[in-house]
Amino acid sequence: MAKAASDELGDKIRQGIVITKHGYSMGSIGNLRIREAGHPVPDGDSYSATREALDMVRGLTAEDTVLFLVSGGGSALFESPLIPEGGLEDITRQLLACGADITEMNVIRKRISDVKGGRFALHCAPARVLSVVLSDVLGDPLDMIASGPAYPDSSTPEQAMEIVKKYGLRLPEDALETLALPTPSKLENVQTQVTGSVSQLCRAAEETCRELGIQPIVLTDSLCCTARDAGSMLGSIALFHRNTDRPLAFLMGGETVVRLTGHGIGGRNQELALAAAPAIAGIPGAAVFSVGSDGTDGPTDAAGGYVDGATVPRLTELGICVDAVLRDNDSYHALQKTDGLIVTGPTGTNVNDLTVLLLIPQDRGHRG
Amino acid sequence: MAKAASDELGDKIRQGIVITKHGYSMGSIGNLRIREAGHPVPDGDSYSATREALDMVRGLTAEDTVLFLVSGGGSALFESPLIPEGGLEDITRQLLACGADITEMNVIRKRISDVKGGRFALHCAPARVLSVVLSDVLGDPLDMIASGPAYPDSSTPEQAMEIVKKYGLRLPEDALETLALPTPSKLENVQTQVTGSVSQLCRAAEETCRELGIQPIVLTDSLCCTARDAGSMLGSIALFHRNTDRPLAFLMGGETVVRLTGHGIGGRNQELALAAAPAIAGIPGAAVFSVGSDGTDGPTDAAGGYVDGATVPRLTELGICVDAVLRDNDSYHALQKTDGLIVTGPTGTNVNDLTVLLLIPQDRGHRG
Repeated sequence: MAKAASDELGDKIRQGIVITKHGYSMGSIGNLRIREAGHPVPDGDSYSATREALDMVRGLTAEDTVLFLVSGGGSALFESPLIPEGGLEDITRQLLACGADITEMNVIRKRISDVKGGRFALHCAPARVLSVVLSDVLGDPLDMIASGPAYPDSSTPEQAMEIVKKYGLRLPEDALETLALPTPSKLENVQTQVTGSVSQLCRAAEETCRELGIQPIVLTDSLCCTARDAGSMLGSIALFHRNTDRPLAFLMGGETVVRLTGHGIGGRNQELALAAAPAIAGIPGAAVFSVGSDGTDGPTDAAGGYVDGATVPRLTELGICVDAVLRDNDSYHALQKTDGLIVTGPTGTNVNDLTVLLLIPQDRGHRG
Repeated sequence: MAKAASDELGDKIRQGIVITKHGYSMGSIGNLRIREAGHPVPDGDSYSATREALDMVRGLTAEDTVLFLVSGGGSALFESPLIPEGGLEDITRQLLACGADITEMNVIRKRISDVKGGRFALHCAPARVLSVVLSDVLGDPLDMIASGPAYPDSSTPEQAMEIVKKYGLRLPEDALETLALPTPSKLENVQTQVTGSVSQLCRAAEETCRELGIQPIVLTDSLCCTARDAGSMLGSIALFHRNTDRPLAFLMGGETVVRLTGHGIGGRNQELALAAAPAIAGIPGAAVFSVGSDGTDGPTDAAGGYVDGATVPRLTELGICVDAVLRDNDSYHALQKTDGLIVTGPTGTNVNDLTVLLLIPQDRGHRG
């Protein structure tokens, strides 16, 4: 996004800063400063880069324009907490571990932040803010994407407290008080434009299927259940349609959640794929894969996971039980042994995840 | 099944016994004894009726034929435990509460039983046993349906111990010893015929949709994830397809499981339907319903649940939060308040559950 803006606007950009995930920088862009920071847990680099950005917008006039390009992941990368930094990291870890969905996470994160929930746009005022949003939140709720630094906030202190209660979050007194502070429910200086979303990702996948001679069936672009059950259900769908006489692809877009029950390594996409593996075991021409569009899945170097009819037989040979792996949330190591890790490296964008079930009749010579 | 056999064979039946769930007797059938017993937890009536059946087959010769008609639910109704009765009831309750699927439950139940896992057929020998099976287990594994009283048993003591470990079941020493006893892996005197299954149920639903001018899409006939996530995923599918220009029905057959996190009343079908309600809130022409084909869903008088676009708005008016209801496993009371309970009474058969998502475009005047 920054590259496109720089190519287009060139010298019209007086100054700027790009904040991306550690290891995700793709080199210099025009006269922009490039900063790398922590994700999904914000770190010191997140805070210092955000302070640089805040310094840049200090003292602007009504004649100035701030071009604010934001995509998923911004919640961690763009952060200046209103509570001690250690406390924020602890809260973020609790939110990731308890199974809260991204919407719930953002309600908490925005209220304890000096830049989220529209507060960044307040810092820019009276300058005009042009906000261009690549959506990673289902249904594109603009106040939720990257926790809405330049969008009015619809969350309330009551909602925040409900989430704290629901997941039994352990919060210090100062954090609880901060949750109750007001966020801007109206912003006069902001214009917003959505430029990409998981729906577009699904449509693109659908188009690619057609080009490959595979009939696509998009089930949903707002998947939001647990990764394990989404995989199990997709496996059930595979079982029913395994004797299809034409190449079929069931597509799902969205973002599942992982319920942590073990101490292994994995991500929601890897866990989803592995959960589908038992159902398709031994079925020729059946495959399930799931990937994060940002090229990263959980705290791993993989973007997602791939399984097919040979996955479970291979794991069984190795003495590995899928059920035990899933209980331990250790999909990464199991998929590593079956060449089932999808590694793309950073894609530079984030519009949620794409999950695909492929069923390719073998007798007609099709290959997926 | 008993009625059909009696009508067909009449006087050729020397004696017989029907064991059905409490309240499910539909009156006398020929010269057969009718007994009602406990389900899903076996009770004293299960044991005494089963003892009557065992008395009937004692001392048969190779010239005799036992017609054994069995359907889902038989695991609880037809039982003569090899461990003290109180112990069996405790184990069954643990199995129902821990989220074990029906296959896992049956591995345990058959090994501590004097009639399951092929042991009933051994009692009948040398008489010939003609076993007619109405399947309620996905994929029709004959040793699993009603825990296979007349079918060789493929389970092993090792599998049983694995399940005990997986769910942390608390079993007394005598039960653990009984789990290790052999079950017949071969039965020479039995012939088996499957006469109905969830696949046939799905096909029938598909046919009915076509007759109603609704395009049916069967997703699976082997659904087996949690009720809550199946509902959530179906809700996501509804969201994506809500603007369909023709009447659509997504159909799923199978049997979900409920993870008990609260102390309310409900069943897997009611929980599934309610879990889909938030996604379809306010969508005209969208409805989700899920029913147990036996007319019973959990420990309730309902067969299942129905929700549509008006369900969540109505619950919200009443101050009821769907999320809280689901956490408390209290779907019955919530659906009661929205006229969402499907009550059919006993259907006399059991081939798992059917779940339907209906999407009927309103502008063209269709009604579901």
